Amino acid sequence: MSQIDSPIVALDAMGGDGAPREPVRAAATLSRGTNIHIQLFGRSDLIKAELDRVEHNPANLTVREASQVIAMGESPREAVAQKTDSSLVLAAKAVAVGEAHALVSAGSTGALVVSAATHIPRIAGVKKAALAAVHPTRERSFSNDRFALILDVGASLRSDAEDLLFYAMMGHAYASRISKVPQPSIGLLNVGSEEGKGDEILTKAHRLLREESRLNFIGNVEGTDIPNGIADVIVCEGFVGNVVLKMAEGMGEALTNLGAWAFKQKFAWRVGMALLSGGLTQLKSVTDYREYGGAPFLGFKRLIIKAHGRSSEHAITNAVKVAAKGVRGGVAEQIEEAVGGFERRRA
Amino acid sequence: MSQIDSPIVALDAMGGDGAPREPVRAAATLSRGTNIHIQLFGRSDLIKAELDRVEHNPANLTVREASQVIAMGESPREAVAQKTDSSLVLAAKAVAVGEAHALVSAGSTGALVVSAATHIPRIAGVKKAALAAVHPTRERSFSNDRFALILDVGASLRSDAEDLLFYAMMGHAYASRISKVPQPSIGLLNVGSEEGKGDEILTKAHRLLREESRLNFIGNVEGTDIPNGIADVIVCEGFVGNVVLKMAEGMGEALTNLGAWAFKQKFAWRVGMALLSGGLTQLKSVTDYREYGGAPFLGFKRLIIKAHGRSSEHAITNAVKVAAKGVRGGVAEQIEEAVGGFERRRA
Repeated sequence: MSQIDSPIVALDAMGGDGAPREPVRAAATLSRGTNIHIQLFGRSDLIKAELDRVEHNPANLTVREASQVIAMGESPREAVAQKTDSSLVLAAKAVAVGEAHALVSAGSTGALVVSAATHIPRIAGVKKAALAAVHPTRERSFSNDRFALILDVGASLRSDAEDLLFYAMMGHAYASRISKVPQPSIGLLNVGSEEGKGDEILTKAHRLLREESRLNFIGNVEGTDIPNGIADVIVCEGFVGNVVLKMAEGMGEALTNLGAWAFKQKFAWRVGMALLSGGLTQLKSVTDYREYGGAPFLGFKRLIIKAHGRSSEHAITNAVKVAAKGVRGGVAEQIEEAVGGFERRRA
Repeated sequence: MSQIDSPIVALDAMGGDGAPREPVRAAATLSRGTNIHIQLFGRSDLIKAELDRVEHNPANLTVREASQVIAMGESPREAVAQKTDSSLVLAAKAVAVGEAHALVSAGSTGALVVSAATHIPRIAGVKKAALAAVHPTRERSFSNDRFALILDVGASLRSDAEDLLFYAMMGHAYASRISKVPQPSIGLLNVGSEEGKGDEILTKAHRLLREESRLNFIGNVEGTDIPNGIADVIVCEGFVGNVVLKMAEGMGEALTNLGAWAFKQKFAWRVGMALLSGGLTQLKSVTDYREYGGAPFLGFKRLIIKAHGRSSEHAITNAVKVAAKGVRGGVAEQIEEAVGGFERRRA
């Protein structure tokens, strides 16, 4: 699938709090301004009703009927197994057989992880796929062209040293193709910055990462370094990545609540809050992973992007654009090559 | 050691950025206002020179000569093994043989962990000691009487289900004796709040915690819940606890930097920052673990309190008071009893 100029993206039109309205509007906007072809999976009556309300270019859109919807609260495993006619499962299957190049959904993360794992082929050599969180950092202005990535944030819980190396290869491939940073810096999340820190898994991962000369490995990083944006890509096991991601969300909420609270408390604080809002927004963007449209789920032969459940049309538009950019840039092929190279050198 | 009314605390007078000045001043203050007896370990010439400058009650102070100092950058293992005449090692030995009831140091955390592990007897049944971080939470006004505890934050890296249960028992004993909360709520840090979440270790820990009827176990908690203060005690393995603790510190630094940055940027932001400083201080206290004088290192027959490296006289005073309160309340005995009860029921 190299050299694809007009990527086909399978979009789960029923996923996310704003579905089907926000995904359909995103597709309509993209149909008019890009050469991305979007397959909208979902209840065709609802999708068409939304499309009728907005300008769109029918040549770049296909509506594909799916009678079922996987809701946020459902058990991912059961839902994916039983709802074989759901928008998500049908979209994943379309991607698996090559009818589309990438999959985008703002629905349940668990269901996306399970349906991808069930239907979409893994890259040879990759034992564990990894869900990445993409976030801006304090030092950086945020755009698609500069971001920090942390992976895995919960596709699995535990990792061995080789998994961590593969996360780094996948993060490198994604960051170097999607951002404009040709050699993204890679950090290994650990309990100290010195080389010998951590248990056997971490010290072995450190060695493997150092030996992999194609990676710009900067060594161990600590919790303190996450908000500081010391590395473009931070690798860690899914358990700690998940806790860190959610803790950042909690901190973001605390900041939001501080705003609401300050507003209620005192006139001086209310004025202060208003004057400072630009500064707080900058800090909040460090903690609010929602600002970024999509988080990649890496390790598969096709590109998979999870958009946040509360995604607006704008956020889903960004997620689809990122998916298309990844397809054009050959992110999956790049990961395949890196993993293959490692396996050959080891053999 | 039950029913101790006049606790003897061994204080490392050479530990921390402000040593020996801040620890000695803290001891001087305490000697005049409490019935805590403090043994000051360190270079007696330096300690006496500091004491000469401040009012103190000599009846409540003993100066114990230690010719060596363990510095912050030293390898904990080597330093503790080689510097047998250091203030920290001599203080730990004094506690071990019962010359003092508790140990307080603001020096290197690693050296304190190693010297305690080397010299101070562990409570029978406790395989892994746990370092706890104590912090105020958003919902709460902060005082010694209400705090949240997270443990382990790095005394070891990995934990099995039983270690996590013992962390909960130790956290319960400490929080119920030091705070005024008789039944502190306990949460298990996990990747989701539902009961079946996590790997085998976590699901087994969940079962053990639920079965332990003396604990007020509220179930799994997530990263989001840490800044929200949903539980009085959060238990987790040391690796993730360490990352979480340092990430909170990094967030606190980001807030501080935001202040400095806003001050430089625009007059409006400068005014806003000044008006808002009360609100930001409240939020910052959520992320700044330094605000609290001491973090307990639990699982030993004596109480051990680590004060922050940048502790002022005030912070060290608090740490010593907490140590004395823990001695009077019988925290170590309470842990011994809880662990013993579990072992008997299992047998």
